[in-house]
Amino acid sequence: MPEHTVTAFDAELKEIGRKVVEMGGQAERLVVDAVNALIRRDTELAQRVVLLDAAVDALQREIEEKAILVIAKRQPVAIDLRELVAAIRIASDLERVGDLAKNVGKRVVAIEGEYHPQKLVRGVEHMSDLVLEQLKEVLDAYAAKDPVRAVEVWRRDSGIDSMYTSLFRELLTYMMEDPRNISVCTHLLFCAKNIERIGDHATNIAETVHYMVSGETLAEQRPKADASSETSIAFPGRLQG
Amino acid sequence: MPEHTVTAFDAELKEIGRKVVEMGGQAERLVVDAVNALIRRDTELAQRVVLLDAAVDALQREIEEKAILVIAKRQPVAIDLRELVAAIRIASDLERVGDLAKNVGKRVVAIEGEYHPQKLVRGVEHMSDLVLEQLKEVLDAYAAKDPVRAVEVWRRDSGIDSMYTSLFRELLTYMMEDPRNISVCTHLLFCAKNIERIGDHATNIAETVHYMVSGETLAEQRPKADASSETSIAFPGRLQG
Repeated sequence: MPEHTVTAFDAELKEIGRKVVEMGGQAERLVVDAVNALIRRDTELAQRVVLLDAAVDALQREIEEKAILVIAKRQPVAIDLRELVAAIRIASDLERVGDLAKNVGKRVVAIEGEYHPQKLVRGVEHMSDLVLEQLKEVLDAYAAKDPVRAVEVWRRDSGIDSMYTSLFRELLTYMMEDPRNISVCTHLLFCAKNIERIGDHATNIAETVHYMVSGETLAEQRPKADASSETSIAFPGRLQG
Repeated sequence: MPEHTVTAFDAELKEIGRKVVEMGGQAERLVVDAVNALIRRDTELAQRVVLLDAAVDALQREIEEKAILVIAKRQPVAIDLRELVAAIRIASDLERVGDLAKNVGKRVVAIEGEYHPQKLVRGVEHMSDLVLEQLKEVLDAYAAKDPVRAVEVWRRDSGIDSMYTSLFRELLTYMMEDPRNISVCTHLLFCAKNIERIGDHATNIAETVHYMVSGETLAEQRPKADASSETSIAFPGRLQG
């Protein structure tokens, strides 16, 4: 390709990478706000999260379209092509992260004013801190094109999953102890599940960053420790599975 | 393009379309089996669903890679480009459908042998019938490149959402009436949510089919009637929201 074309192509690649980083920042912000809204029972903040998710969706479509057009126009190969494919995949994961944050926001509005012992929220808060750290780390790994950092994020996901599983049991136990907790705990269970799935998307992004830089997919079995969907808890509060 | 190239390109497009239809059939099968496993409490079938999801994931990557390579190689425009973008988007939705079916399968295994009144499952069954009909319809709309059928699917999603919302309340009420129902109902709530989200992916696919054929995105506000995340239910069983 003549010099000027190469330069234009590089500029297009950089522009798309910038958009992905921008989208990551917006998605991260939505998660932070959704979790804070839950902890502080701030329904106004929760409603703002629900509204702002649309901007993240719009960015996803923009990134996808730009990347596809560049692929069609430049016929890139190797690392260049992988960067564009990675942008499409990561934008798709970040769009889901935004949806999950929005759903947490909706549930904060739902449980407004309900009997709502703070200790019930603490477990969700603790898990959220880990998930947000994962999201931040993997977005930094993407910006730095650092596969080692991406693999570290990827390995840590199992910690979040096992935390979710014990939180799941804890919330079920609260429901059994006092039926007044059932409605709030059900919404908290869904919030916890949404946040745990945000962690899964961070793991997807880690796999994409690794593939983008190295050209190899993480062959190793993905770490999985969310046993909650296999977890049963018998009345009264006896733990199984 | 010289004749033979056009023919080769058409063959590539058809091949990718066939793969998407094949993937749709596999994802649909997983949902049917997961729901049947839930209704019949057939844990063997449920375990098969969990295993077979990997094949759907593999097809998604294959479709994505093939479509991207064809875009890079052929520089398609207009309908041809939209068909390839649609294949990438639909494969991504179908991959999520497979994951959601897998999650239902895991929960069937989890609640094995638990106190499990059949009436609790009936609501989920009824909703699943509608969702499966939607999935079947939208896959037919894709195969037939029929935007009218796609729009019909798109409009019907709100019916599933409102059915999910009432099911959500019903299950919460069961939990409050008898704490022995809490563990099973919690898993059924997640199953119902997974199935409702399969309906959302059918709606996404409908939007993609409409875009693929017409080149226009469905501008109209997407029909939304899942109010469950805003639904609260106070003890004892008084309905709100």
